[in-house]
Amino acid sequence: MTTLKRRTFLSAGAAAALGTVSGIAQAKSFDPMPAQWDENFDVIVIGSGFAGLAAACEAKNQGAGNVIVLEKMRSAGGNSVINGGIMSVPGSAFQKALGIKDSLELLAEDMIREGLGYNYPEKVSAMTKAALPTYEWLVKEIGVEFVDGKVGQEGGHSVPRHVYTTNGSGSGIVSKQLEYAKKIGVPVRLRCYVEAIIRDSDGRVKGVKVRDGYRFGKPDSGKVKYLKAGKALVLCYGGFGADVNFRMKFDPKLTDKFETTNQPGATSELWREASRIGCNMIQTDWIQCGPWNSPEEKGMGIALYFAQGAAATMGIWVNTATGKRFINELANRKVRADAVINNNNKGQPCIALADQNAVDLTINQTRKGILDKQLERKVVHKFDTLEAVAAEYKIPLDELKKTIDAYNAALAKQSGDEMGRPFTKNAKPMGTGPWYCSLLSPKVHHCMGGVETNSLGQVIDISTDKPIPGLYAAGESTGGVHGAVRLGSCATMDCLVNGRIAGANAAKESAWS
Amino acid sequence: MTTLKRRTFLSAGAAAALGTVSGIAQAKSFDPMPAQWDENFDVIVIGSGFAGLAAACEAKNQGAGNVIVLEKMRSAGGNSVINGGIMSVPGSAFQKALGIKDSLELLAEDMIREGLGYNYPEKVSAMTKAALPTYEWLVKEIGVEFVDGKVGQEGGHSVPRHVYTTNGSGSGIVSKQLEYAKKIGVPVRLRCYVEAIIRDSDGRVKGVKVRDGYRFGKPDSGKVKYLKAGKALVLCYGGFGADVNFRMKFDPKLTDKFETTNQPGATSELWREASRIGCNMIQTDWIQCGPWNSPEEKGMGIALYFAQGAAATMGIWVNTATGKRFINELANRKVRADAVINNNNKGQPCIALADQNAVDLTINQTRKGILDKQLERKVVHKFDTLEAVAAEYKIPLDELKKTIDAYNAALAKQSGDEMGRPFTKNAKPMGTGPWYCSLLSPKVHHCMGGVETNSLGQVIDISTDKPIPGLYAAGESTGGVHGAVRLGSCATMDCLVNGRIAGANAAKESAWS
Repeated sequence: MTTLKRRTFLSAGAAAALGTVSGIAQAKSFDPMPAQWDENFDVIVIGSGFAGLAAACEAKNQGAGNVIVLEKMRSAGGNSVINGGIMSVPGSAFQKALGIKDSLELLAEDMIREGLGYNYPEKVSAMTKAALPTYEWLVKEIGVEFVDGKVGQEGGHSVPRHVYTTNGSGSGIVSKQLEYAKKIGVPVRLRCYVEAIIRDSDGRVKGVKVRDGYRFGKPDSGKVKYLKAGKALVLCYGGFGADVNFRMKFDPKLTDKFETTNQPGATSELWREASRIGCNMIQTDWIQCGPWNSPEEKGMGIALYFAQGAAATMGIWVNTATGKRFINELANRKVRADAVINNNNKGQPCIALADQNAVDLTINQTRKGILDKQLERKVVHKFDTLEAVAAEYKIPLDELKKTIDAYNAALAKQSGDEMGRPFTKNAKPMGTGPWYCSLLSPKVHHCMGGVETNSLGQVIDISTDKPIPGLYAAGESTGGVHGAVRLGSCATMDCLVNGRIAGANAAKESAWS
Repeated sequence: MTTLKRRTFLSAGAAAALGTVSGIAQAKSFDPMPAQWDENFDVIVIGSGFAGLAAACEAKNQGAGNVIVLEKMRSAGGNSVINGGIMSVPGSAFQKALGIKDSLELLAEDMIREGLGYNYPEKVSAMTKAALPTYEWLVKEIGVEFVDGKVGQEGGHSVPRHVYTTNGSGSGIVSKQLEYAKKIGVPVRLRCYVEAIIRDSDGRVKGVKVRDGYRFGKPDSGKVKYLKAGKALVLCYGGFGADVNFRMKFDPKLTDKFETTNQPGATSELWREASRIGCNMIQTDWIQCGPWNSPEEKGMGIALYFAQGAAATMGIWVNTATGKRFINELANRKVRADAVINNNNKGQPCIALADQNAVDLTINQTRKGILDKQLERKVVHKFDTLEAVAAEYKIPLDELKKTIDAYNAALAKQSGDEMGRPFTKNAKPMGTGPWYCSLLSPKVHHCMGGVETNSLGQVIDISTDKPIPGLYAAGESTGGVHGAVRLGSCATMDCLVNGRIAGANAAKESAWS
């Protein structure tokens, strides 16, 4: 009886939803088409980061014809070019050589657990499957160079699984993507700002209105032009981390007191425009702060490579007021950023702390030369003794010593870390000076939400639940991949894998006329 | 130097965002107006729950003229009519008589802390200020009856602060609102389904396309009509908790395995439609499950009044596999629902447990007769001994006894509850049979997100950040009030306070012609 009732109830609900959707669709209104197009393309890609360049090149290689990448800023690469240059590759040869046991399922589990189950399972599964082939494509086709034999571990991952670009930055990928794009005939047009997406009365996206020769910060600059997308438009415009007003609509805590790691062009205009033309915007209020940034430099900076790469794996993070650790330094970014923010709000600054052994075993191998730069820029500071560290940051010395003793004791037993942090292979007890420190101050880093897409990268219409004809998306502009919390080294994978999927499917669209 | 750089950076970003918005606005497209309107109104309110009825009556009283409420279902009241009939009233005479110290600031703190700071602070502040006057209006103007002298405490609240309707249901409010609406000349048109919102080329919302005589579940039923809103349209259409497909877009975990406490009409069509016409949808992925529901009945049911009203305050919640408590029974709904879901997923059912003293001191006073109904419907079960409880639910008896002893010991000292739960005034030690139990199974309950509104209840345009002329909203259809987690007894307050604000301001709109 209960079962029967339930079925009736559910089927009534399903029918209503269906009817509703078809009812709304007929009332839909769309944009007027321009009297004529100024330029004609087959596939237009908005955004020149990892995802946009991957989408455009894949579209070109799949026979899309005339492909162009539009970038509003005066240089290419968006946030990707200032990204840390790490990428999750489960099952890499490097992992195997180091005897690290990993699997696609384990990566998917990590992503979904830390993403609080907000991830779309089919997207996670598709992405993890494509990670290794995409890495091989990067190396063999695009010519990207990675640090030989090194594998790192970001917070929230169960095992070390990310590779490092040799130049220690996402620019090591973007620069090669740009060379490749040039080689295969995909132009990147800089200072070309997309002011409107044209969705015609038949529901298809057919082009964009741009300001060509746009100067960032001058809204009326550039020449207005209409560009036709004969096959498809691909949205790879990234996040809105630098847009204080817009991000506060979704998370009012993220006021202008929070800096951002993002480049200044990470603003909201195309998020608004995507919503206006009928895209479904999902999970937009999950905006991640990077927990490892330093208040002693602007933007993303370079201190994080110490705080994360050395201190979080072979050192500790310390609350200067108490001399104690306050979080699992390998917890996910949200958990750590929240913990640091709470301490900062109480007037208790936090530092990342590591000794000479720790930096020698980590960043001095994976990011050669970075430590000198960090010291030179005074974002990482060097002290001969622990006493000097305590004096500088006003840390109770006895408590700090107890904290280090406890960490060393647990490390020696390989069990019982007081914060539940897994022990990093080859980690040595802390104690050999000199010591290194950076201050911690979370900055707005990544938008987990975005347009809803299906497994082909097609963008879903809010009214009909069907793909919007001629519209694709990938990367930070999409939602549902990372769920509530993006794990470090998973954005590069997301952008490249899903950029290629979107580009390949965009190329297959039939042309309208 | 750093300060200067930062200022330059921020002002560049701000200028860009501004330019962007004005740039997009000119490209906006809108709906065609109907050739003629079938019926003319000054203010049209969609939805007949607490918010819709409050908005319509307030608009009428403020001189709006011809006001109507549209309801797609065959009876009025939406989820409000099956709501538990409790409302937060900080500073009530009942609180004072009981010596409970409360303040507007304390309620705001509770809401924002449990809402994880996603609440818009100005909305919380306005609502808490209006709570007591709204309660007095309910009693004096609308004629709602509340249980004399009784004040209750829901999870996440620091102190007992909610009043109870005498009939133990939101229907005790809705029925009086309906009488009042009739008295002042505000008709409620049932089976009138809004298929489209008409937003004209000047950007103003001017009316709706409806199906009059609609039958829920039959999308093509009813007669198509165009209704003119000469002053304003007010969106009080509620949440989408019953729409499995739509809710899974935002939180993929909430599959059809989760039942809902909502009435079947709580579907997504107007959420989609609001987005289509250019509303900004915020915080849509915060969808709350009620932690206290029973799998032994459909929908909201009545077992929750035992699980929450008796067991969470003067009894305990127990994991049957371990015999132990597993959560602060007065934690917020999300924390508790997540804990129960995790246990259920591990195959460890949870129960709410209370003894005769507990029910006598709680629901037997505030909801007279409910316990008999709960027992009759077999959603609360009665046992003579603790041994019988343990046998029925396969609980390790020794562990269960230890758990109760620990609770009683902490209660006796008035400190050290193992789950950090505050002690309820006058609570007695557990131990006097008979015992009462209900099974726990979270059900989808409340959508925290919705359209962005300002403090006047005006709906904000995604492209321009300005109010959409002629469009207002209140209640569950709006976001930013409750943040990540709505506290129990705050929805009634939200709907009534913000419904009245939206209605009053809608009445003040100048008429278009």
